[in-house]
Amino acid sequence: MRWARIELNGAPRYAVIEGDTVIPVNGSPFEAWDRTSQRLKLDDVKLLVPVVPPTFYAAGMNYAEHVKEVAAKVGQKPNLPTQADIGYRANNALVAQGETIVIPADATELVQYEGELVVVIGRKCKNLTRENALSAVLGYTIGNDVSERTWQKQDRTLWRAKNTDTFKPMGPWIETDVKLEDLVTKIRLNGEQLIAFPTNHMIFGVVDFLVNMTTCLTLYPGDMIWMGTEGATANMKHGDVVEVEITGIGTLRNPVAREGR
Amino acid sequence: MRWARIELNGAPRYAVIEGDTVIPVNGSPFEAWDRTSQRLKLDDVKLLVPVVPPTFYAAGMNYAEHVKEVAAKVGQKPNLPTQADIGYRANNALVAQGETIVIPADATELVQYEGELVVVIGRKCKNLTRENALSAVLGYTIGNDVSERTWQKQDRTLWRAKNTDTFKPMGPWIETDVKLEDLVTKIRLNGEQLIAFPTNHMIFGVVDFLVNMTTCLTLYPGDMIWMGTEGATANMKHGDVVEVEITGIGTLRNPVAREGR
Repeated sequence: MRWARIELNGAPRYAVIEGDTVIPVNGSPFEAWDRTSQRLKLDDVKLLVPVVPPTFYAAGMNYAEHVKEVAAKVGQKPNLPTQADIGYRANNALVAQGETIVIPADATELVQYEGELVVVIGRKCKNLTRENALSAVLGYTIGNDVSERTWQKQDRTLWRAKNTDTFKPMGPWIETDVKLEDLVTKIRLNGEQLIAFPTNHMIFGVVDFLVNMTTCLTLYPGDMIWMGTEGATANMKHGDVVEVEITGIGTLRNPVAREGR
Repeated sequence: MRWARIELNGAPRYAVIEGDTVIPVNGSPFEAWDRTSQRLKLDDVKLLVPVVPPTFYAAGMNYAEHVKEVAAKVGQKPNLPTQADIGYRANNALVAQGETIVIPADATELVQYEGELVVVIGRKCKNLTRENALSAVLGYTIGNDVSERTWQKQDRTLWRAKNTDTFKPMGPWIETDVKLEDLVTKIRLNGEQLIAFPTNHMIFGVVDFLVNMTTCLTLYPGDMIWMGTEGATANMKHGDVVEVEITGIGTLRNPVAREGR
């Protein structure tokens, strides 16, 4: 099942997608809902960020090759994580399918994509076990954890390196029927595929994070976890179009512009 | 003016506090509002966390003595921040006035308070200037940035050191009439005052953070910034009561319990 959040009569509304048809619902996937009688064409609707989370979690360093690549870029030794310590990102930076990634005028050239699987939590939960962890997941969407590497290296926190407005494209929708081990993430810049990797080849997997996090944290409906990216990443510049595809989920596509250009 | 968020007929409601009288409103301080005709006694209402933010910002290391104390505790060199780089905390950890700080069974003894000024944003804003920055502030409340120092030292992120459920008491209310330079923060454990410091003696002040953050970030109504704490902090144990008073705002008071005791 495929859940979108769309703009309808100027307000956000959840909708079910079936093929090219969009069916607005009353309610949301996080509570009671029912289909309306409306039928829209997918091409005609404005897709919004599929969820605005109470808390925005991010795994960060979670694929072995990427850890080595980033360490080299910021001039540090690669430091493979030894436990599933979760990090955070910020809602101000979220933009939807098709919206523009705006590079601030004072950013360097080192503004890079990171294509990521996003886990969307469906229910309130704590102390999940390996057996029941995935039952807390509503579904999966796609994120692009855009990063300015100079700021990432020099600042004490990731506030502007990763949370500058528009640096967190997410979408296009939430897919509930996903077999994690079958997924492949493909990243394209201006149509050229730069990397493809098995999405589930993480250092710590979805279940690892859910179990570890919920030893101390309550997760709430709509919370989401960005699972990290693999391999090297490349610079994006004014006029580029970046795509993150995860097979079976969809393709997140965003143009790139530099402020003041 | 003093804004509280209270529980009324089982739902959250904003209210104005005048002396010991609580006046529920329709709407909220972040949009249009008007007073209802109801009058409640302060002692009779359940105070909720005064705001649940879209994004929960925290300055972290922002008072010189505290930076040195924490560095000593975690065995690192003190590293005074050279720019106003903002960090993040998480909504799951928020609890209100009077609610219990629950120390997980597997935490060490090193669970400590940090009494902090909290800035509550009143309107959407970007690119604030030193001249207009404070006009974006609705008011101020009080936070206790409870921290487990062993986890803070050993984990890659602050996820459980600072964001374990109940580790972010906040309240009792939002005060809009505040002169920052007059404020004094006082922290008491079981009635004994352990520290008092001029709240505004920060490394980077409220204006510094607002101006710097909004070069890259849009702030939204209800966003909040915890401004950090000063000096040494002490352990809290099962049965303790911790109070953070900021003169002119109020006193945030929370009991402490250890899980399984």
